[in-house]
Amino acid sequence: MSRAAELDRADPLARFRGEFVVADPDLVYLDGNSLGRMPRRTAEILRDTSGAWSHRLVRGWEEGWIDLDARLGAKLAVLVGAAPEEVTFADSTSVNLYKLATAALDAAAPGRRTIVSDELNFPSDLHVLAGVAARAGGRLVLARSADGREISPSALAGAIDRETALVALSHVAFKSSFRHDLAAVTALAHGAGALVLWDLSHSVGAMPIALGEAGADLAVGCGYKFLNGGPGAPAFLFVRRALHERLRNPIPGWFGSDRPFDFEIAHRAAEGIRRFVTGTPPILSLAAVEGGVDLVLAAGTEAIRRKSVAQTEHLLALADQALAPLGFEIGTPRDPERRGSHVSLRHPEGLRIARAARSLGVLPDFRRPDHIRLGVSPLTTSFVDLDVAVERLARILRDGLHLGIPDDEPPVT
Amino acid sequence: MSRAAELDRADPLARFRGEFVVADPDLVYLDGNSLGRMPRRTAEILRDTSGAWSHRLVRGWEEGWIDLDARLGAKLAVLVGAAPEEVTFADSTSVNLYKLATAALDAAAPGRRTIVSDELNFPSDLHVLAGVAARAGGRLVLARSADGREISPSALAGAIDRETALVALSHVAFKSSFRHDLAAVTALAHGAGALVLWDLSHSVGAMPIALGEAGADLAVGCGYKFLNGGPGAPAFLFVRRALHERLRNPIPGWFGSDRPFDFEIAHRAAEGIRRFVTGTPPILSLAAVEGGVDLVLAAGTEAIRRKSVAQTEHLLALADQALAPLGFEIGTPRDPERRGSHVSLRHPEGLRIARAARSLGVLPDFRRPDHIRLGVSPLTTSFVDLDVAVERLARILRDGLHLGIPDDEPPVT
Repeated sequence: MSRAAELDRADPLARFRGEFVVADPDLVYLDGNSLGRMPRRTAEILRDTSGAWSHRLVRGWEEGWIDLDARLGAKLAVLVGAAPEEVTFADSTSVNLYKLATAALDAAAPGRRTIVSDELNFPSDLHVLAGVAARAGGRLVLARSADGREISPSALAGAIDRETALVALSHVAFKSSFRHDLAAVTALAHGAGALVLWDLSHSVGAMPIALGEAGADLAVGCGYKFLNGGPGAPAFLFVRRALHERLRNPIPGWFGSDRPFDFEIAHRAAEGIRRFVTGTPPILSLAAVEGGVDLVLAAGTEAIRRKSVAQTEHLLALADQALAPLGFEIGTPRDPERRGSHVSLRHPEGLRIARAARSLGVLPDFRRPDHIRLGVSPLTTSFVDLDVAVERLARILRDGLHLGIPDDEPPVT
Repeated sequence: MSRAAELDRADPLARFRGEFVVADPDLVYLDGNSLGRMPRRTAEILRDTSGAWSHRLVRGWEEGWIDLDARLGAKLAVLVGAAPEEVTFADSTSVNLYKLATAALDAAAPGRRTIVSDELNFPSDLHVLAGVAARAGGRLVLARSADGREISPSALAGAIDRETALVALSHVAFKSSFRHDLAAVTALAHGAGALVLWDLSHSVGAMPIALGEAGADLAVGCGYKFLNGGPGAPAFLFVRRALHERLRNPIPGWFGSDRPFDFEIAHRAAEGIRRFVTGTPPILSLAAVEGGVDLVLAAGTEAIRRKSVAQTEHLLALADQALAPLGFEIGTPRDPERRGSHVSLRHPEGLRIARAARSLGVLPDFRRPDHIRLGVSPLTTSFVDLDVAVERLARILRDGLHLGIPDDEPPVT
């Protein structure tokens, strides 16, 4: 029995794969960090929810939909180490980022107008943050990466100063998988008198997160990666309880108002986290989030992280052995403490190789210019999957299977 | 045969009721203006979409999801008299209102800082608009209603002046059903040098709308009322083509950027309407919108409007005859040209009466302080439904069935 097969046999999370629809058992799916697999229960949730719509009609609101965002938020709070009343689901990650960053700048002291982020952050996060800072009369300052892989603590510290209102970062970087030390950076920002806002899109569901313990102020994240909430699943947002009264939602919609059914012309924000919600949530998509969140809760984020680290270590060892000689470069931090749940392999022919991998039944994703991302989803990825993926990537290079494949159009995943 | 039964027999749209799930044929559902019924085909759409997620995984994006917003936008364009490339689906009505109003104020001449609306507009539209105006250093000015039913052209004209950057109105008012003359108001706003933004939530799907012919600049609207898109269905937005380059989305997310898969740090907005999209749309909820939109397209908005007017006329005649003597007041304009597809009946005991109606199998909704709203959804509402509703409302008053029903808590529909 191979080492990978032994690891799979000893895997305490192995049973969770059976909780997901696995339509093609031969497909090695390593893109769960972009779109997680569908839990089997989710089909039933969708039937129940559309059944409530068709049978109960508008009464569905009083029979469960009206507080679905809060109910799921309370579940997600467990995954991010927050109190139940500090988290809710709403909108998209970008809209939530805009709302919370704007609220933070509105509440900042007059001299504090800049937002600090880093150049490994997701580009549209940076676009949103740059816009928010400019609208407040400030600007976005980026900590630089020396190697394209990591942001050093000193680079980040050097970017923060007395004009910093907000430090807004992705917990785990989308390309290199670099993971910030959430507690240390939060303390750094607070020491400089700034608030901190975490985008947890690439970490939530794949590891324990302790927002409360770290004293973090704000967070957002998406529901469709390691939470397995479905394509474009609604995002979530977190606001530390002590800030609920101090911060104002710049887009005060109906759903976030106090006593929304009074329809009063004067706006009064709802109590608590609800005030950061804007419009009516898309109930079909929101309901679907519960299936994946419940599975992550059942597995436990500590166990998930243990398997995730074992798997990315296994993958890196395989890559060193079989792929480095073929021209692949590891684009991911070596220290598991500084890494999320995906591994980036860089190769000048990356896009062609990623496309060739597809036709061999391995589905990674690709990020320009040369990152082949292999996402480890501990609830569904096996160790043998990783062996197969590396073996096939090596075969592509050995046999030149990528030659002649076009790389002129950007991929759509 | 009753007059209503005759009208139903002659109704050219009668067959459409069979296209919807009607789980309880005895229920008289008059809340389709809050949440429209579920089309039968939508169950299949949801199965197909969740099937694509579970079976095709991330490949679903390149196999139809990536341009689903634009494809549905092009269909909706037919319903609002716009070009296909001027409409898309995104976010909620409130978020879209915020984005477009902010973009309009950002692009306005320096002296133009106010937004004009009216006091019959939906409260959270007013909350959003007030916030946008204040952030731009201006304020929200409201045209007043003399009778709580209508906004006179002169009241609106009087609110608009040389400082007006934007006139932002609901086409049809959520309580009284008052309908603005879209073309006349657009011309009025343009004559004063202002842009105009229509919230079509209470009109789209219930009547023809000619944004292009009127020269309207901007519009938003929701998908869950007369479009039958499902609870919290994604909203849509319209931007006149000539403004695509001039206006900037204040929340520039990933989905609205040019070549989003290049992941470049410098933001470049997508071409055309796509630049007003922000994050990834909730695909399950978005896909569900198509069932209802296709039925409205198949029926045609001219035919829908003809039936809607006949039905609200029928309802008002019945109310005059049977309900006025029992203390009901008509809260809706008498002239069908100045009315949408719902009728508001006001009564001091409105909430108790609406609740009693429920237990008699009639489901209206209620808006404080005293509006019982009877929504006519021409694709599913019959004339006999209206007879039954009025007969039962009269019975409630005659027999005092509403007495003793609590009215202390606001309703949740």
